[in-house]
Amino acid sequence: MAKKFRGIYAALLTPFVGDEIATDQFRDNILKFNEQDLAGYVVLGSTGECVSISDEESERLVRTAREAAAKGKTIIAGTARESTRLTIDFTNRMADLGVDAALVRPPSYFKAKMTKEALKKHFLAVADRSRVPIIVYNIPQNTGLSLEAQLILELSEHPNIVGLKESSGTISFLGELIRRLPADFSYLLGHGSAFLPALLMGASGAILAVANAAPALCAKTFRLFNEGKIGEAATLQLDLVPLNKAVMESYGIAGLKYALDRQGWYGGPVRLPLLPMEEKGQAEIDALLKKLGLIG
Amino acid sequence: MAKKFRGIYAALLTPFVGDEIATDQFRDNILKFNEQDLAGYVVLGSTGECVSISDEESERLVRTAREAAAKGKTIIAGTARESTRLTIDFTNRMADLGVDAALVRPPSYFKAKMTKEALKKHFLAVADRSRVPIIVYNIPQNTGLSLEAQLILELSEHPNIVGLKESSGTISFLGELIRRLPADFSYLLGHGSAFLPALLMGASGAILAVANAAPALCAKTFRLFNEGKIGEAATLQLDLVPLNKAVMESYGIAGLKYALDRQGWYGGPVRLPLLPMEEKGQAEIDALLKKLGLIG
Amino acid sequence: MAKKFRGIYAALLTPFVGDEIATDQFRDNILKFNEQDLAGYVVLGSTGECVSISDEESERLVRTAREAAAKGKTIIAGTARESTRLTIDFTNRMADLGVDAALVRPPSYFKAKMTKEALKKHFLAVADRSRVPIIVYNIPQNTGLSLEAQLILELSEHPNIVGLKESSGTISFLGELIRRLPADFSYLLGHGSAFLPALLMGASGAILAVANAAPALCAKTFRLFNEGKIGEAATLQLDLVPLNKAVMESYGIAGLKYALDRQGWYGGPVRLPLLPMEEKGQAEIDALLKKLGLIG
Amino acid sequence: MAKKFRGIYAALLTPFVGDEIATDQFRDNILKFNEQDLAGYVVLGSTGECVSISDEESERLVRTAREAAAKGKTIIAGTARESTRLTIDFTNRMADLGVDAALVRPPSYFKAKMTKEALKKHFLAVADRSRVPIIVYNIPQNTGLSLEAQLILELSEHPNIVGLKESSGTISFLGELIRRLPADFSYLLGHGSAFLPALLMGASGAILAVANAAPALCAKTFRLFNEGKIGEAATLQLDLVPLNKAVMESYGIAGLKYALDRQGWYGGPVRLPLLPMEEKGQAEIDALLKKLGLIG
Repeated sequence: MAKKFRGIYAALLTPFVGDEIATDQFRDNILKFNEQDLAGYVVLGSTGECVSISDEESERLVRTAREAAAKGKTIIAGTARESTRLTIDFTNRMADLGVDAALVRPPSYFKAKMTKEALKKHFLAVADRSRVPIIVYNIPQNTGLSLEAQLILELSEHPNIVGLKESSGTISFLGELIRRLPADFSYLLGHGSAFLPALLMGASGAILAVANAAPALCAKTFRLFNEGKIGEAATLQLDLVPLNKAVMESYGIAGLKYALDRQGWYGGPVRLPLLPMEEKGQAEIDALLKKLGLIG
Repeated sequence: MAKKFRGIYAALLTPFVGDEIATDQFRDNILKFNEQDLAGYVVLGSTGECVSISDEESERLVRTAREAAAKGKTIIAGTARESTRLTIDFTNRMADLGVDAALVRPPSYFKAKMTKEALKKHFLAVADRSRVPIIVYNIPQNTGLSLEAQLILELSEHPNIVGLKESSGTISFLGELIRRLPADFSYLLGHGSAFLPALLMGASGAILAVANAAPALCAKTFRLFNEGKIGEAATLQLDLVPLNKAVMESYGIAGLKYALDRQGWYGGPVRLPLLPMEEKGQAEIDALLKKLGLIG
Repeated sequence: MAKKFRGIYAALLTPFVGDEIATDQFRDNILKFNEQDLAGYVVLGSTGECVSISDEESERLVRTAREAAAKGKTIIAGTARESTRLTIDFTNRMADLGVDAALVRPPSYFKAKMTKEALKKHFLAVADRSRVPIIVYNIPQNTGLSLEAQLILELSEHPNIVGLKESSGTISFLGELIRRLPADFSYLLGHGSAFLPALLMGASGAILAVANAAPALCAKTFRLFNEGKIGEAATLQLDLVPLNKAVMESYGIAGLKYALDRQGWYGGPVRLPLLPMEEKGQAEIDALLKKLGLIG
Repeated sequence: MAKKFRGIYAALLTPFVGDEIATDQFRDNILKFNEQDLAGYVVLGSTGECVSISDEESERLVRTAREAAAKGKTIIAGTARESTRLTIDFTNRMADLGVDAALVRPPSYFKAKMTKEALKKHFLAVADRSRVPIIVYNIPQNTGLSLEAQLILELSEHPNIVGLKESSGTISFLGELIRRLPADFSYLLGHGSAFLPALLMGASGAILAVANAAPALCAKTFRLFNEGKIGEAATLQLDLVPLNKAVMESYGIAGLKYALDRQGWYGGPVRLPLLPMEEKGQAEIDALLKKLGLIG
């Protein structure tokens, strides 16, 4: 039986000072997140600007996360590369650093050739040779590829493929899959505005970028859901929507980093090609944080 | 205050005998649906193959529905045309036949020109001149156009624009809008696999094609939700997903009609360019109906 | 042998006075176009705002065109509807008014169901029953559907399917098809910025919206091409690009109508939901017309 | 004045033996290509499976190409990474190996944030710091991003941005740009089925994957064009279309490699996640090569 991933995981930001990764600030953030009721952390996810940092920087981040994470906090690392071989190599480098699982989005550069068959072969080969369990990652908004339900079902039969992070947030997709997946397979929503509905329909947890800015609120929503207080949970979920939209769509990672800066954590700048947030976004995010009681 | 549309509305099929519309069979179906706990009916929706029938046929269908619908059942008619003028004309023809509201999807042929400004002007002009309330209809899978949240907000200020049917089923879109809409504005989900999550997040009801095939199940899901039995409601919602997928995606309207035929209602053929269902679909739909206890 | 459509066809605008169709102005425009070296006219094409006008208005336009067109000018009418039945009916109404051919875009509302098989059945049924030859119309920018090369090949075997109007302007698509089509099949480009390259690769002509604004220039490009003066033709084609972009993309039909007004023809307003051109577009179009020597 | 890139460049395949890059076979292929009338080579392009090979492998390929290329053959290396910083670093590593120019596609993972402003800043930063000239690379089919004409115009003002490789093959896009670019800016088409039309409209050359399989035919098409024999050139261009489609769409890089194997060059296997070509493709490619006289 695979370990089931339950609860809220923060998809951690990668802090930079100037254009250099800042492991001290990364550690400090994690130490603060440790105090929250989070199940664990994703390092090198999309929110972590994974595609913008080098392999060596990636290693330093994962080492730092492993050391800083409180006991019992799960560490998941994003390890996808565009080829099967490079993905396996990098996944095992991360496995050697002690991550609990690898989050693997599909190769997407050769889109037209990424048929179900090609993706299946890719993920199975990675799962066969990875020394840690694999969580498949569907994020069509970034990859331009939507994984089919049938592919997920077939992959879920592999003992080393233990979960799905689904970031399109399509609840009907979850509904189509949830009863047909193995009992120990983890369905983790990757959308901060729709994770309560996903939990209601059977998801075991969520991996959330917005959990960097509002970890307590995310954790509380999950707790209320678990306690059967669905109405209260729905109220919190709706409370979260405007902030989630601001930091995921309107202002993106730059906005999310700003939201951390405002709360005394370290957000700092984004790395190019992402652009810094425009001034006008600051007032909007300030207002959203105030409304949520996250700043005075 | 606008009347709030609550509960489950069936998006009615249009029955044909041969290639002619069959108002007798249409009436018989409605008489049977009247026994169910449905709030009302949509005539000339996408499920009704609205784009494939003539104005004169449309009138006959609406007349029949008006006569056959039990007292208290709301009748909503799909009335969109590609120009503002033609939409107004047709909406008022339907108004004259006694429909309670008009469901209006955006013009979409000149996609690149259907800016927020153009769509706003269109819907406001229709609302100004329509003799019945307007429900805006977002169905990007058919129109190739997604209505922006901001457009819906601006349209919701018009006293004669009273609701939204949202058929993409995107729950985060609902979350973004629901608290910012007027209290008497109706948010109606148009997706049979995600309406419970939508209700949880604040939708007032749903307009469902699958309600033709499983009206009691849809209505019961709504009732359980209203009684606060969310867990039981979620079970029913998940029960419904495979049938909904079969009749909305895999086999489409031809599959939905078959599902009616199997239950002793009248489904009959689809009109070209829709194709009849392939044989193999029949066994699949039979199995799904059996599993739901809808056939023996 | 089908008649081969060669040369430049103007996709005629539909003039309105206020919101009413203006057949006098339509006639006057055609009389002026008759003086140009154009092969004929398309009435009720996309440029003619076909989706925004009623059947009865359509008939008046076609009657007017038939009467006003000089002897030898071909009249093609856009006759597509969303169902096979409605398309056949309307096509034959237009046939009865004396059009030489019908231009038929695919049904596209039920996009997900418009498989190659469904589209083939549709077009074959229309061709079987139409009393005039059919020209298939590929315009993915408006329909959201791209016709496959293989579908065109199969349709081209039907004796009453005599041509393709291809408005995506994709030259590789033409290259894929041109040698495999029957000798008497007409490949007509529907893109004003790429018709010379299409002619070079084997197209027999073009149906152009921009020919309303610059008929002589379009006709001359074709003539130079026919005379083997490819370099001079390319110069004219490039001359035409900025105007074509302005009236097809930046400002659309409203811009095209303005370009007619400025030259002493009748453009007039567009019908809603199309919006009037913004002021700033006027100066841009003026400059483009001046540069082409079309206004003083 | 920047050097103008004229003529046909082969976008070289990366040969593997098993799953290891095969520099000997790569050298042998280049030695054979040297005999053809090609202007140069692109190493690490999409055709070279650039996203599937490591930095160290990339260096070995570029070194090999530099050594093997005949005097006067230009070497262009694909050097894009997802961040500005990583792109600059890798570009200059390649510059140090003696490449003549770098081909840089846009970052595309954070699609929604890759506004014109972000892309402009990215490309300008790369151009500022690159020690070799930059050729911007538009390949929306792989990146999911289309570069705007206006962006290209603005980038073309930078002295170190010297060209565009345009792989969508959209001739109207070329028409929109060609007269507004600096005289020494190179517009290179990246589509084997549409490069003659592009040349006719002002492109200075083409970077072609199909030139691996049919270098002489590509080169001859260019030569005929230059000699003003447009009709003969068009015949060759059309001859090339079926092979180009087979190796670019139907069978992809695996098919292209097979086409080399069949001609006595080295194609070999593709690297996962690309799949080997299915058996049935072999007969089709054999037939196409035979028809072109490339095999007996």
